[in-house]
Amino acid sequence: MDFSKEKPSEVRKLIREGKITGPTSGICNGYAQANLVVLKKELAYDFLLFAMRNRRACPILEVTDVGSRSLEKMAKDSDIAKDFPSYRIYEKGELIREVSDVSEYWNDDLIAFLIGCSFSFEAELLEADIPVRHIEEGRNVPMFNTNIKCENAGIFHGNMVVSMRPIPSELVVKAIEVTAAMSMVHGAPIAIGKPERIGIKDINKPDYGDAVTVKSGEIPVFWPCGVTPQAAVMASKPDFCITHSPGHMFITDVKNTNLKY
Amino acid sequence: MDFSKEKPSEVRKLIREGKITGPTSGICNGYAQANLVVLKKELAYDFLLFAMRNRRACPILEVTDVGSRSLEKMAKDSDIAKDFPSYRIYEKGELIREVSDVSEYWNDDLIAFLIGCSFSFEAELLEADIPVRHIEEGRNVPMFNTNIKCENAGIFHGNMVVSMRPIPSELVVKAIEVTAAMSMVHGAPIAIGKPERIGIKDINKPDYGDAVTVKSGEIPVFWPCGVTPQAAVMASKPDFCITHSPGHMFITDVKNTNLKY
Repeated sequence: MDFSKEKPSEVRKLIREGKITGPTSGICNGYAQANLVVLKKELAYDFLLFAMRNRRACPILEVTDVGSRSLEKMAKDSDIAKDFPSYRIYEKGELIREVSDVSEYWNDDLIAFLIGCSFSFEAELLEADIPVRHIEEGRNVPMFNTNIKCENAGIFHGNMVVSMRPIPSELVVKAIEVTAAMSMVHGAPIAIGKPERIGIKDINKPDYGDAVTVKSGEIPVFWPCGVTPQAAVMASKPDFCITHSPGHMFITDVKNTNLKY
Repeated sequence: MDFSKEKPSEVRKLIREGKITGPTSGICNGYAQANLVVLKKELAYDFLLFAMRNRRACPILEVTDVGSRSLEKMAKDSDIAKDFPSYRIYEKGELIREVSDVSEYWNDDLIAFLIGCSFSFEAELLEADIPVRHIEEGRNVPMFNTNIKCENAGIFHGNMVVSMRPIPSELVVKAIEVTAAMSMVHGAPIAIGKPERIGIKDINKPDYGDAVTVKSGEIPVFWPCGVTPQAAVMASKPDFCITHSPGHMFITDVKNTNLKY
């Protein structure tokens, strides 16, 4: 089914009811999508500082008050413990479970961080006649670990994760311009071509998501990815953490164009 | 003396030695200038969240590690307890002292937040042939309290403070474009003309800094101001806080153009 023109509140309802369970790329064109990191209050300062120091990869869209599962700004009548299609539960940095509802794990000591996602700008790329291969091929976006070190903050450290979209060489400048205008959903690319320069050995073997076809005349273009904080969580091994599953995002009520200011 | 072409490290040395004591507008053209808020660790999360929720007024350039007086990114060999021309010491929200060196007040429980400043983009306005009146008139920039509510975070709350520059009406669009490109030093204006709409009663009576001439054919243009967190500190009355004195900024080693990403 095509949910590209659907209202965000309708899609969140379908997700909450278990009727949408897959990656959210291509859903609700023009509306910002969001990554999730949920941590105990005692780690909130370190994490917020990590996000601030690495804002290209971790642009914070909203932070809940401690214990709260609802949002003030990014969505009305939402339950962030149920409105992502899939979640990951980590204990001491180990992925212990992947579930579609984390309400039973929630408690009054948790804070949720909503982080911008590059799926947000894909509608704008398509609108500018720039192909988005993983949407064409019905796959999750390919994501890679890199050798780009994040700035540490408290216990949090790690390398940047990037998403990759193959772009025809003559459209690369336009793709940069289109995405640079949307800094709260990762903005401009971090690298153009030369995957080996950022520590990617095989463009056909992503660390997260699916491989996509890179055609002759196309350049792999890399954007900072909101999975970066997940990689930092894995590397930093906090006692407890909830994240979304890569590619399985929260659909906000806020248009990309309204995120600039 | 004209310090517009001076090296930031040289100017910081002159400030540290007490040879520059006044407002820093017009100093070290092209280099970002910074506001300061210093708080105890226990308030750091609330403050960082306040800054994140009000990033137009409080764009965070750097946060020190707890107890540290030196910076990693924004300046080499600096001492933030000495390198601002003037500081304010607050106790329970009351201004108790204005001094040029706060090293005797520093302790291992303090965290310093360096926040972007609109002085940063004045060289770019001048380069675009847009007049900057307070520089012409040798005054501090006029700053005003407004009725624009900040988003609360923990104990921190308050209204936005803005800086005002009168711009010839035909140059307002250019002034917006020039400053919008520099989001980490406040970016685009928050209001154009109509001071009464943002709660400013008398454009000739600023709440901070000096009044400047507004000529016929000019529109007062208002930018979010890094004094906003000071107003929040005053309103929120933490036990202890250090800030810079309005207009008396830190000169960083980082060019505005390198702050975008």
